[in-house]
Amino acid sequence: MADAPHTWMRKAIDLAIENVRSGHGGPFGALVVKDGELIATGVNSVTSRNDPTAHAEVMAIRNACRRLATFQLSGCEIYTSCEPCPMCLSAIYWARPDGFYFACGREVAAAHGFEDAFIDKELGRHPDERTIFCRQLVAEDGLRPFEEWKRSQRKIPY
Amino acid sequence: MADAPHTWMRKAIDLAIENVRSGHGGPFGALVVKDGELIATGVNSVTSRNDPTAHAEVMAIRNACRRLATFQLSGCEIYTSCEPCPMCLSAIYWARPDGFYFACGREVAAAHGFEDAFIDKELGRHPDERTIFCRQLVAEDGLRPFEEWKRSQRKIPY
Repeated sequence: MADAPHTWMRKAIDLAIENVRSGHGGPFGALVVKDGELIATGVNSVTSRNDPTAHAEVMAIRNACRRLATFQLSGCEIYTSCEPCPMCLSAIYWARPDGFYFACGREVAAAHGFEDAFIDKELGRHPDERTIFCRQLVAEDGLRPFEEWKRSQRKIPY
Repeated sequence: MADAPHTWMRKAIDLAIENVRSGHGGPFGALVVKDGELIATGVNSVTSRNDPTAHAEVMAIRNACRRLATFQLSGCEIYTSCEPCPMCLSAIYWARPDGFYFACGREVAAAHGFEDAFIDKELGRHPDERTIFCRQLVAEDGLRPFEEWKRSQRKIPY
């Protein structure tokens, strides 16, 4: 059983290769495993689904959560063929698996034209120093949904 | 027309309030506007859809891209009732709208039990210093999908 993580990872890499060959999307594959069982896979589907959030890890998380009928992946591990971009890494935190494995590093994605490193740098900057236009508006009104949340008897915390 | 951004923002806030009242999800709403026209809305749907990535901004981006049949939101603006979490901010970069507006700041979300600030801090750390388990495996094999990508005649860069 010592080799199991390598075996899962090679499967994630094979998914990524097949994803490029089929023209379905970018060179990324991921999967979610629980108790040694494959729960779900995901491949980059940005261009075929017209969904810029459809990265491999996000797709694997969505598919695994649907299969397990939960919004939390506790007890699960994620295998991804490339180190997660900031969106996917954040999605992993929100999904709360036990951990994740990756094959090649983020710098490889960057070297092939993917913007992971750029976004990472932008996130670390003060909002005023980012390249994207961003303005705060009616901040006081923005508190109202949270007041509603505090009062709500129907809320499901996540 | 000078008030238009405030009007869109109040609509995003109303969506967030209604989302809590209906028990559908967390206190977050967003919308995508292009040339003064509403393209799509999105509300936090994490618990109702069993999708930890179904934040308001991600849903609005997905819905807008589906409506416009594109994976890029150039020419669009995003309005969100709360400053985007790192996942949503990264999703915004990937979607490439012209910019975005937000009402209340991220610290308000944090004060109400949402993990935005925690994830932000984790992203800024070296992988070895993060709280989530993470290991690199078979890094060399991880290059193969990118080699396939380089060779591919079918690829659609994004």
